[in-house]
Order: sequence, then C-alpha cells, then structure tokens
Amino acid sequence: MSIVIIAPTRDGQIWKNELLELDNSLDIEIYPNVKNPENVNCAILWLHPYGCLKQFSNLKLICSMGAGVDHILNDPELPEIPVTRIVSDTISTSMSNYVIMAVLQHHRMMEKFEVDQNNKVWDQATFPEREVKIGILGLGVLGSDVATKLVHLGFEVHGLSKSRKNIEGVTSHIEDDPGGFFREINVLVCLLPMTEETRGYLSHSLFNRLEKPCYLISVGRGFQQKEVDILEALDNGKLNGAFIDVFEVEPLPESSPLWDHPKVKLTPHNASITNPKAAVPIIYDNYRRMVEGRDVIHEVSKSKGY
Amino acid sequence: MSIVIIAPTRDGQIWKNELLELDNSLDIEIYPNVKNPENVNCAILWLHPYGCLKQFSNLKLICSMGAGVDHILNDPELPEIPVTRIVSDTISTSMSNYVIMAVLQHHRMMEKFEVDQNNKVWDQATFPEREVKIGILGLGVLGSDVATKLVHLGFEVHGLSKSRKNIEGVTSHIEDDPGGFFREINVLVCLLPMTEETRGYLSHSLFNRLEKPCYLISVGRGFQQKEVDILEALDNGKLNGAFIDVFEVEPLPESSPLWDHPKVKLTPHNASITNPKAAVPIIYDNYRRMVEGRDVIHEVSKSKGY
Repeated sequence: MSIVIIAPTRDGQIWKNELLELDNSLDIEIYPNVKNPENVNCAILWLHPYGCLKQFSNLKLICSMGAGVDHILNDPELPEIPVTRIVSDTISTSMSNYVIMAVLQHHRMMEKFEVDQNNKVWDQATFPEREVKIGILGLGVLGSDVATKLVHLGFEVHGLSKSRKNIEGVTSHIEDDPGGFFREINVLVCLLPMTEETRGYLSHSLFNRLEKPCYLISVGRGFQQKEVDILEALDNGKLNGAFIDVFEVEPLPESSPLWDHPKVKLTPHNASITNPKAAVPIIYDNYRRMVEGRDVIHEVSKSKGY
Repeated sequence: MSIVIIAPTRDGQIWKNELLELDNSLDIEIYPNVKNPENVNCAILWLHPYGCLKQFSNLKLICSMGAGVDHILNDPELPEIPVTRIVSDTISTSMSNYVIMAVLQHHRMMEKFEVDQNNKVWDQATFPEREVKIGILGLGVLGSDVATKLVHLGFEVHGLSKSRKNIEGVTSHIEDDPGGFFREINVLVCLLPMTEETRGYLSHSLFNRLEKPCYLISVGRGFQQKEVDILEALDNGKLNGAFIDVFEVEPLPESSPLWDHPKVKLTPHNASITNPKAAVPIIYDNYRRMVEGRDVIHEVSKSKGY
C-alpha cells in the first residue's frame, strides 16, 4: 500500500513531509518517481496529467489537494472510485476575507480616495460610503460563509442558488424565479460551483439581467467567465468595476486588456490557496477511513460535479 | 424654547430638516442666525466657535453631532450642563468596516499585488496571506465592535484598555500590565478615547515597546499621534506601513510627507462620518428627555472626557 502525490505545479515534498509528520509509517511517492504503481492505493492530486492514473491498477481513493475538483472530474479516464475534496475553515476563511476586502474597498470608494491621495486632495464633501447590496451567485460552503459574514458587517445580502437556503439575514432567491435578485443588487459575487453547467455564466446574458450597474467580484473559476463580455460590460456601464481572481487562461496572458483596465483589480488566482497544514490532516483522515473500510468524508458527487 | 445648530463645517439645514421631520413643532435656528438667544435651551454642535455658547443664558443641554466630544469639552467657556454624544450602530459599523478594510488589504498583501498588476506579473509562488495578530488600543464601543468582528473573520485579536474587558475571543490586556500585548501583535489599531491623556500617544515611546514590526491603523484623533515619530518609525522599521485617517493638522497640509510616502495610505478623516439620519433621532430623544426632566442618555463624563 502506498500513496502517490501528483501535482506538477506544486511542491509535493511539502505535502509529503506534512503527511509523514502525522504518520511516519506511510509509504509516499511523488509522481513521476513511482517504483511500484500497482502498490498505490491513494492518489493526492492537483492538475495531474490526464491519463496518468490508469497505471495505478489498485487505486482505491483520489483526494484533491484543494476545494476544487474540476481538474480531477474532467479527466476522461477517471477511474470509478471515490474522489474527495478539502472542506476546511481555512479555505472558507481565506475566500471570505478576500471577498470582504473586495466589497469594502468598493463600498468605501478607495479607488477615488487613492487618486485623491496621489493628487494631495483632501475631500471631506464626498460621503465616503457607497451604498451596496450584495448578490452572491452560489450559496455552497464558501458562499454561505461569506454571506453570513457580510450580514454581520451590516450589509444587505442576497443569494442565488438552485434550492432555497435558510441563512440568517440573507435573502435567498432561487434560479427558477430569480427576479428580486437581479432587481436589488449592485455588487455581484461569483462563487458558483465548478460544474460544466456554469461554463461561461458571467456573460452578456447574465449582465443584461442586472437592473443596476454592478461591481463584479469573480472568485469561482475562470471558465465561468467570458472576459470579452466582462470588458464590454465595463465599457457599456452594466458593470462599474471588477475585482477578479480567476481567468479563462491562467496565467493571464500579458496581452489581456484586463491587466491595465482602469476599473479592474486583479490577483493571480490566489483568493484561497490551500494551506498544506490545513489540508493534510483531512486527507490523512480519509486515507485511514479507506484503509479501514469506513466511509470517506467530503466525497464529491460526480453527477453534481462538487 | 428653541434649538440652535452650530456647525460651521456642515450643512445645518440637513440636520434641521431631519429634526422637523420628527417633530414639526420644533423651533430650530442655525447659528449665527439666532433671533432670541435667551430662548435657546438646546445646542447641537460640531466644531463650534469657542466662547459662542455664553450668549445662550438658558442653555440646558449640549448634543454633539457625532461620537466625538473633544471639540466641545475643549471649549474653555463650556457651561456646566449635560453634554451628550452619538452612540449608534451606524458609527460603529462604519468605523469597523474601515478598520477591517485596512486590516484585510494588509493581510492579503494588496500593496504587493497592486504593483504586480501594474507590472503584469503573475506571481503564484508567494503565499498571499500575511499572518496578522491585531492589537486594538481602546476597547470602548468602537474598539469592542471591531474586535468582535475581526475575531469573527478568523483573526487573533488583542485589546489594551484601562480595565480588563470580557469580549468573546479577544485577549484583553490592561495598561498597568500590558506585556503580552506588545509581545504578540503585528497590527496596531488606535481607537483610543479622545481625552487629553491620549495626546501624543502614538509616538516613539509607544513604538519602541513593539516587539515586532507593526502595521499602524490610526482612526482615533489626530492629536493622539506624533506624525514625525510615525515617519521615523516607518523608516527605522518599527512600523512596516500605516493606514491613517486622522492628522495633527486637518486638512493635512500639502507639505506633509505622509501624502506620498510609499508605505502610507490615507483618507481625509472620513472613517466614520455621522449620518444625520442615524444621529437625529438620538438627539431628539435626548431633547425630549431634557424638556420632560428625565435623565438624558449617552451623556459624556467630563472628567473622563468620553
């Protein structure tokens, strides 16, 4: 029995060391240096090369290194075994703090006051708080956490999801009857699940439903947005600004007009990076569960995609 | 019986209209246009000219338009009558959101990622969350509110105040034995009360007690800081940055090196501007209490200064 770590863009050694700290009897290899592929019963993955899993004929469990699993489920040769993801307070905390930062700097008009500072302008006549009504696309674990926290900070928060959610202080709208959502909001946060259904969701057909100019905060996945439509919506006023962490192509090509668009702030897909310290105990727990024949936790539904 | 509004830097008419909406039988005048000063029994003040109150010989109540009362208590000819201030959720909410914004943009290293965006640099190697341990000077109404909210966002929060406070999740230190406070923190938030005792508190003698380089968030009052010491502390590394809303001289003179210091973000004393909509009902309630001979609320202790 052995574990393989397949994560070409990450430092697998850090994850290996964290696992060994929990249990130094583990046999862990870092792909592609695997001596006996048939011994591997657990694979820990982040952006693995598609097709590489079939050499592990006795694989029983796949663990994503993060909250996202689209990179795993999109593998056309994915074996029929459980796939788990990381659900941890750390991920929610990071994501929520990123979104709250983006909301607050917009609410408090920092883009104006930064320009004022550059120009040594002391403007007390402008009331410094823009009224915001926040709409969150997707009220899963991450969406619910940030919704709750924004309510706690005194904001009006609406959510849009498949089924109605009961979150204190949050007005829950459902996709089949979303009218009020698009009428009320002027800040739009995308925290949709990473499913094929959500591909290209942030596009003209969505922006045209917004009844007020909105500030977009996009932190789901890059394939959910059509960047050419976002740029056009920024120009025609459907969007009055955007704080974007994810992109259709990553790294964002130097030629993208998003880089220096005056209404865009962007970060390199780092709103919520899984910290190995937080993730490894969850992965190890699931590994033990698999070995002992118990049910794993945070298993992904392959039909839903999350 | 009449009310006078004395607020040369504000639009008194807005406050008058809000009061009349609550009670259109009120007789309200805006200074200096006062016909019968001896009829005035209540004065609503913001930065009034010192000495002007003595003409109102029947004054029974002074109401500050905001949370601050230093501008009133510093009047050497202040009559011996109750002074009240505004305590409202709106003020706490604004102040807390300002401080949280400042904490989050530091925690998430936005000063780095803004430069990266300008240079079209996609850096995923840097872990984007700086570890922060927040120390709050002053755990009054405003300090307690922001402390509670920062805990709710997942941060470690310490407070320093005269007496020990019991706020869930917050480590309370007292001024007489502050050791742990200065050992632990790397973010320093000043929300001290506006008393003479706190004059010049943000100076070398404080910064030299900090055991780690700290990020300063200064939102109390300008007279609490020595800006020449702040600038030196930014240069010698005791402070690694600052987010400042209040200044020794306001408006901040164009000659101040703070305007374009690369480690300083500043705003024109607008962290929490009292909204008349929120303040007027509180003032009207106290006016009725005074007229009916009941105790007023949110009265200021002149010895404590808040």
